[in-house]
Amino acid sequence: MRTIKVTIWNEFIHERKDPEVAAIYPNGIHKTIADGLIPYGFQLRTATFDQPEHGLTEEVLKHTDVLIWWGHLAHEKVADEIVERVYERVLDGMGLIVLHSGHFSKIFKMLMGTSCDLKWRETEEKEILWVVDPAHPIAEGIGQYIEIPQEEMYGEFFDIPAPDQLVFISSFEGGEVFRSGCAFHRRLGKIFYFQPGHERHPIYYQKEVIRVIANAIRWAASPHGAEPFFGHFKTDI
Amino acid sequence: MRTIKVTIWNEFIHERKDPEVAAIYPNGIHKTIADGLIPYGFQLRTATFDQPEHGLTEEVLKHTDVLIWWGHLAHEKVADEIVERVYERVLDGMGLIVLHSGHFSKIFKMLMGTSCDLKWRETEEKEILWVVDPAHPIAEGIGQYIEIPQEEMYGEFFDIPAPDQLVFISSFEGGEVFRSGCAFHRRLGKIFYFQPGHERHPIYYQKEVIRVIANAIRWAASPHGAEPFFGHFKTDI
Amino acid sequence: MRTIKVTIWNEFIHERKDPEVAAIYPNGIHKTIADGLIPYGFQLRTATFDQPEHGLTEEVLKHTDVLIWWGHLAHEKVADEIVERVYERVLDGMGLIVLHSGHFSKIFKMLMGTSCDLKWRETEEKEILWVVDPAHPIAEGIGQYIEIPQEEMYGEFFDIPAPDQLVFISSFEGGEVFRSGCAFHRRLGKIFYFQPGHERHPIYYQKEVIRVIANAIRWAASPHGAEPFFGHFKTDI
Amino acid sequence: MRTIKVTIWNEFIHERKDPEVAAIYPNGIHKTIADGLIPYGFQLRTATFDQPEHGLTEEVLKHTDVLIWWGHLAHEKVADEIVERVYERVLDGMGLIVLHSGHFSKIFKMLMGTSCDLKWRETEEKEILWVVDPAHPIAEGIGQYIEIPQEEMYGEFFDIPAPDQLVFISSFEGGEVFRSGCAFHRRLGKIFYFQPGHERHPIYYQKEVIRVIANAIRWAASPHGAEPFFGHFKTDI
Repeated sequence: MRTIKVTIWNEFIHERKDPEVAAIYPNGIHKTIADGLIPYGFQLRTATFDQPEHGLTEEVLKHTDVLIWWGHLAHEKVADEIVERVYERVLDGMGLIVLHSGHFSKIFKMLMGTSCDLKWRETEEKEILWVVDPAHPIAEGIGQYIEIPQEEMYGEFFDIPAPDQLVFISSFEGGEVFRSGCAFHRRLGKIFYFQPGHERHPIYYQKEVIRVIANAIRWAASPHGAEPFFGHFKTDI
Repeated sequence: MRTIKVTIWNEFIHERKDPEVAAIYPNGIHKTIADGLIPYGFQLRTATFDQPEHGLTEEVLKHTDVLIWWGHLAHEKVADEIVERVYERVLDGMGLIVLHSGHFSKIFKMLMGTSCDLKWRETEEKEILWVVDPAHPIAEGIGQYIEIPQEEMYGEFFDIPAPDQLVFISSFEGGEVFRSGCAFHRRLGKIFYFQPGHERHPIYYQKEVIRVIANAIRWAASPHGAEPFFGHFKTDI
Repeated sequence: MRTIKVTIWNEFIHERKDPEVAAIYPNGIHKTIADGLIPYGFQLRTATFDQPEHGLTEEVLKHTDVLIWWGHLAHEKVADEIVERVYERVLDGMGLIVLHSGHFSKIFKMLMGTSCDLKWRETEEKEILWVVDPAHPIAEGIGQYIEIPQEEMYGEFFDIPAPDQLVFISSFEGGEVFRSGCAFHRRLGKIFYFQPGHERHPIYYQKEVIRVIANAIRWAASPHGAEPFFGHFKTDI
Repeated sequence: MRTIKVTIWNEFIHERKDPEVAAIYPNGIHKTIADGLIPYGFQLRTATFDQPEHGLTEEVLKHTDVLIWWGHLAHEKVADEIVERVYERVLDGMGLIVLHSGHFSKIFKMLMGTSCDLKWRETEEKEILWVVDPAHPIAEGIGQYIEIPQEEMYGEFFDIPAPDQLVFISSFEGGEVFRSGCAFHRRLGKIFYFQPGHERHPIYYQKEVIRVIANAIRWAASPHGAEPFFGHFKTDI
């Protein structure tokens, strides 16, 4: 089986300006995710906002099977041209895993067609992610649930289209719920939104969280069909 | 607009053998639901387990647009013949609203094709039902959520097919979540599963709970298409 | 029951520059659809591309429960500001029915998040639309299928998200198929894409086609839940 | 990667009593499918109706990752005990691929909860299966469509729940359409219904048809999550 090529994109801003975040992720969220993924045998690469073309050149995307996206402060500063490039690659079959505050990224909103808005609250709350589609490969190796000791609350209504497959639903201590693991097909591309990962908690060091990301990478990199023909069609059938 | 004919079926056993339940529902859960629904202008009828044919004669079902189902202790004692009769009527276009412990009724399991099993815990826990599909007519007149002060916990994994439309997700104080408002189409019939309503709490006196049931009745009684033709088809097209 | 307010938008260009189309729709497609809908008791209004603000002023949209959209030649000339206005109204609960070549309108592509591209062929082909969700209110009063004697072929792959509810699938004489009746929920809004209606065939004079549009209007105007709260949420639960 | 264990079940009756069918499938449909699958590297086994326990002993099912089901004449003669055994294995994670007239098997009807009825016509008609979810792994290696020169017509309405993922839609020469590739999750199990394969046409010798079955095997054997806990749940969270 060919090796899956993964690019982990992180805006990498919080970690450089906020000492508390830097203490948790001294080399950036992308580096911690990459370290966590090492045992899974992917070919790993990272890219960040500050790099030329945000590190997402034609060349890089061409060699990316699955792109992971963590962003927050710089959503609006990501160049439209790069967003368009990623968008075309997703429709053309590249997998996309959007993490946490990436729900508000240009690329996710563009692909969803909705605002992707939600409720939130930054307090120290326990989150429990419950598996609601145990047949799904993204649930492999996870038990009934994943517990995250402290996470930012994300609550419904989450303004997305109903996911094609809903894999996780979370509860938060305040009583809110959230569709925290959402799978979508868009043309040839597979997209997974996964909620955990506030920058002020060491969530990407948690093995089950990384396990879900690894599962999602495999799912998003799984085969797809032929590129569709569009336009004037002179039947030869 | 024609008046919607509703039959509220209740096994009516808890209320007659358990003084605590009798104190809450002296005339039975069916009567309380019927009283709550009066303002909505439906034509209301009730039926119970002890009646001949469980009160669900051919005649009654023929004049029922939407059937509400509350059962618990007597699931296995409901006659297969009556279950089959209800099943055929649902596929033929009658709406069906399954409440609370009705998840384990023969009719619901038969229509779902799965075990409909779940986790449960009988303690006094607050439940919050969050609207996750605010475009759905079943969410009309409800705010962001419904709070139920004390309810039995029902938790995921709930062994049903992914609902065609997921309207409510609940959280419980213990941290569990549950897909508590689930809409399904089956042939000509519309089915809504609604989780609230443990017999030991006065939940069917809560206005929002009745409002959801009334909304679900209207949705389940909304028009459907023609009876499908099955079998050998000599095209005339 | 309150009267549903419908605005029928048509770019109204083909009918004024192409004598063949003018012969079929002398007063425009919008007028023929409006005439067909008269028996259904809606409050009807039309709007066209050439009017100020394309006829879709804040005032008009405010008093529109369901907007019907027919466009083709001028998709790219529709002002972004008006598209944005319609978009916000849809997310805020206005129904939207997109007809035929409207699949390529800015508003539909924006709401879908995909290219909405497809195969097509302009020959005189019979189309048959088969009901595949007979429980759906949009199928009311239609038999097993609708036959359209001559229609432009639209074929799969149709680059949309999987519809929340698939009501019609079409076949064409050349052997192609098409998801021709697709229902979507987006935040508070209901959207229906309905494929029939090439400008060179008198399709909007066909009673069953109008019947589906009338059904879709009622469905799209059916109640929805409360406007969601987004943003920082200080629980009071 | 571990080898996927596939059991191909065929009632194997047509082939032994109808010379025309025997001429096409001298060793049975199961043998032809097995031969076709050899290049894919699965561990293959067959089972037929006439064997003790229909060839589906506890031992066989325990060592089956994916079960393929072809039946027609003997649906009602399949022992309920064996159907129940297969049913439990599917909910417990075994994949199930139901072919052609298997739509009316006890196991498929039980899992769907509906009649699984449809329209049919036995004439020599061309079928074209169009890919409508090209992101799905089951569409791998197939172009825009598969053409089957002669097939029995199966037409809508097909009385199943809306599939969780719709991969193929077919057209037939008579103008009918059919949801011919339907994917479902049920608890831990993945189910794929695939329409082609009338016994009087050499359809299982067609490479694309076998390719879809092979793809479906891989999809149905892909990982799943943990066995859910059901029943009384004393939270330790």
